[in-house]
Amino acid sequence: MNPTVILLSIGNELLQGSTVNTNASFLSRELFNSGFEVISQTVCADSHEAIRFRLGEAVRRADVVILTGGLGPTPDDVTREGVAAYFNVPLVFSEAQYRQMRKVYKRFGKRIPALVRREAFYPENAKPLINRYGIALGFSVEFQKKLIIALPGVPAELQNMYFDVVSPLLKRKFPDRKKNYRLIAKMVGISEPEVMKKLGKDFFSVPFDFGIYPMPGEVAIRIAADKARIFKGIEKKIRCRLKDWIYDWEEIPLCVTIGRLMVRKKQTLAVAESCTGGALAFQITRYPGASRFFKGGMVAYHRSVKEKIGVSRKILESFGEVSEKVALALAQQVRLRMEASYGIGITGIAGPEGGSPKKPVGLVYIALALPDGKAKAWKHVFWGNREQVQAKATVKALEYLWRKIR
Amino acid sequence: MNPTVILLSIGNELLQGSTVNTNASFLSRELFNSGFEVISQTVCADSHEAIRFRLGEAVRRADVVILTGGLGPTPDDVTREGVAAYFNVPLVFSEAQYRQMRKVYKRFGKRIPALVRREAFYPENAKPLINRYGIALGFSVEFQKKLIIALPGVPAELQNMYFDVVSPLLKRKFPDRKKNYRLIAKMVGISEPEVMKKLGKDFFSVPFDFGIYPMPGEVAIRIAADKARIFKGIEKKIRCRLKDWIYDWEEIPLCVTIGRLMVRKKQTLAVAESCTGGALAFQITRYPGASRFFKGGMVAYHRSVKEKIGVSRKILESFGEVSEKVALALAQQVRLRMEASYGIGITGIAGPEGGSPKKPVGLVYIALALPDGKAKAWKHVFWGNREQVQAKATVKALEYLWRKIR
Repeated sequence: MNPTVILLSIGNELLQGSTVNTNASFLSRELFNSGFEVISQTVCADSHEAIRFRLGEAVRRADVVILTGGLGPTPDDVTREGVAAYFNVPLVFSEAQYRQMRKVYKRFGKRIPALVRREAFYPENAKPLINRYGIALGFSVEFQKKLIIALPGVPAELQNMYFDVVSPLLKRKFPDRKKNYRLIAKMVGISEPEVMKKLGKDFFSVPFDFGIYPMPGEVAIRIAADKARIFKGIEKKIRCRLKDWIYDWEEIPLCVTIGRLMVRKKQTLAVAESCTGGALAFQITRYPGASRFFKGGMVAYHRSVKEKIGVSRKILESFGEVSEKVALALAQQVRLRMEASYGIGITGIAGPEGGSPKKPVGLVYIALALPDGKAKAWKHVFWGNREQVQAKATVKALEYLWRKIR
Repeated sequence: MNPTVILLSIGNELLQGSTVNTNASFLSRELFNSGFEVISQTVCADSHEAIRFRLGEAVRRADVVILTGGLGPTPDDVTREGVAAYFNVPLVFSEAQYRQMRKVYKRFGKRIPALVRREAFYPENAKPLINRYGIALGFSVEFQKKLIIALPGVPAELQNMYFDVVSPLLKRKFPDRKKNYRLIAKMVGISEPEVMKKLGKDFFSVPFDFGIYPMPGEVAIRIAADKARIFKGIEKKIRCRLKDWIYDWEEIPLCVTIGRLMVRKKQTLAVAESCTGGALAFQITRYPGASRFFKGGMVAYHRSVKEKIGVSRKILESFGEVSEKVALALAQQVRLRMEASYGIGITGIAGPEGGSPKKPVGLVYIALALPDGKAKAWKHVFWGNREQVQAKATVKALEYLWRKIR
């Protein structure tokens, strides 16, 4: 049995829905990958009592408790006080973190506000974990063979501190984690029930952990098994039954797979999008290294802009802005103008307005212009709200590109 | 005391960090706004035992328990079974949901896969909540004056079902919710400690709920008070002390505020971005109605694309791609070419690669071209990783535009 972890996220902003708990997903992913088992994530209020209660419960049930958030400067930040109250110890001051604060403020030519001094305090029985990426000090407490860690809630600070200090600390304290055989297969262009059907009933005749996760336009499956023989058998079946849809065996987004392929083949990409409004270009440029294959994009939102980039008025008038011809023209024009190997064109109706019986909300044409000058287009009617239509159209366009270049 | 709610999100994908728990933030926000108090959010594993344990705990502590997820077709979906086991009742079949399933599959010309039939079952002591937006049935159980609700985990389905059936059900069952006076102020261009300093110590001399939430480039404060007199006083202080930074008094993004202003003034916008790679255009087009003021965008990622849209080779060679002159040229050229009132230009180094001692990662120039043909540029060095630099540059550009048009 691998060491167990409970995550406690502190903050009324989470309970009131102002913030999405991305810290819990980041930590869970990293911990899972390192052979820890996260058995629960709990969000609790900015209050001493709530923190004490939840911490007590968590310490009884798990080997490791990681608290996040509530270490800021304002009066609603009470994680330090909550943990100190649980252990009945006073708070003490970290000179080292205070020096780090001074450095940060100096960079911006400012002095440390009085309020911010609070962020250098930690419970007396803890070890300070210096935050070199921000202001708020973290800390860890070892207690009855358990480990309690508190980290600031700002995602970038939390992530950097996790890699720098928390992960080494966890691995030192829990060296005997059982080896798990793990596999992830990321797929595009196939639905959850279709994956299950392709895998078949015999797939589940041996014992192992199985998870399947749908995302817009994508599906991932995750397998964990503790016996090599069983694992090899499962892996072979997946490889054989789902090979047409698997774009990667790593936890990476489709854009990164595409980027790696294009760089290897010395190909480049340009995109012209209407209803996705920049979502496709942004998906591609979110990840480092996009400049090695991505030339640029056009957001041809308004009709006049479509004309400007070379979609003829005749086409726009005869077929309408949302048509196969316009998608094809967008793909071909952007490929030529930006001198790229491939061009993608997208035009459609993301909604909620602008639909008609003949051209409903969700109607999207996607075109791909190829290095030889030819182009192909596909018609889709995506189901969902504006956000989903934009997301699905983006993934589908990337899928067509991937199928061409893989 | 308002009725209390505990949210239980079911799913190994959450515990393993494959999925971010946006359902919890959606429900928390809606419930908070309707006068319910979410006292805890918990994520638990896809297992009967975990669900029974957490459900038991939640029913003891809160008036309402909402379970999300684990209602899908695959063997890891066991929320139905977990709830039935807690109440020791069998599962029964909903013909109404099965008819809805048939409709959805018919739309795509397919028959219902055998696996999917499971999704029409619910615990015998529950009332079925028909899901008109997807496949999986929801349900509700009334038990010892408590209300237990289970909803599918697909965000769009959950959200639609919340508005259609859950919200009316909750309001009927708990009519006596205490009126809360609430206020939100959304600010841009000011940091969390600066907001606290502007508010001053006397601000906190009366009792009320206060929360302050930093996002990249933005800060929101949320106030709740139960006495009208106290609330009015607080509101006046905020209005007076923070008026230079408040862009809205509603829970809306800066882009929507800008859109409303531009539509009212009959102005239009075009953007040319390099290091933000489409993030600015996508921010603007994410929200319905963008077509009323947004003409389009250019993602001038590669140097050759910058030249194509009219940044002269001389400027690129003398000053470099990341320079004030290039930002100005991008803003002015895109404004002219797309015939917009305003043009925004962004060029910078998002990282992690591409930095140098003279031009470090995080260096970003932002320019704004005005209706009179003039343009202005600003230099920033943003702190953080690629994602943060892109996000901060996007918000800062929108801030400059907002200050000009408000």
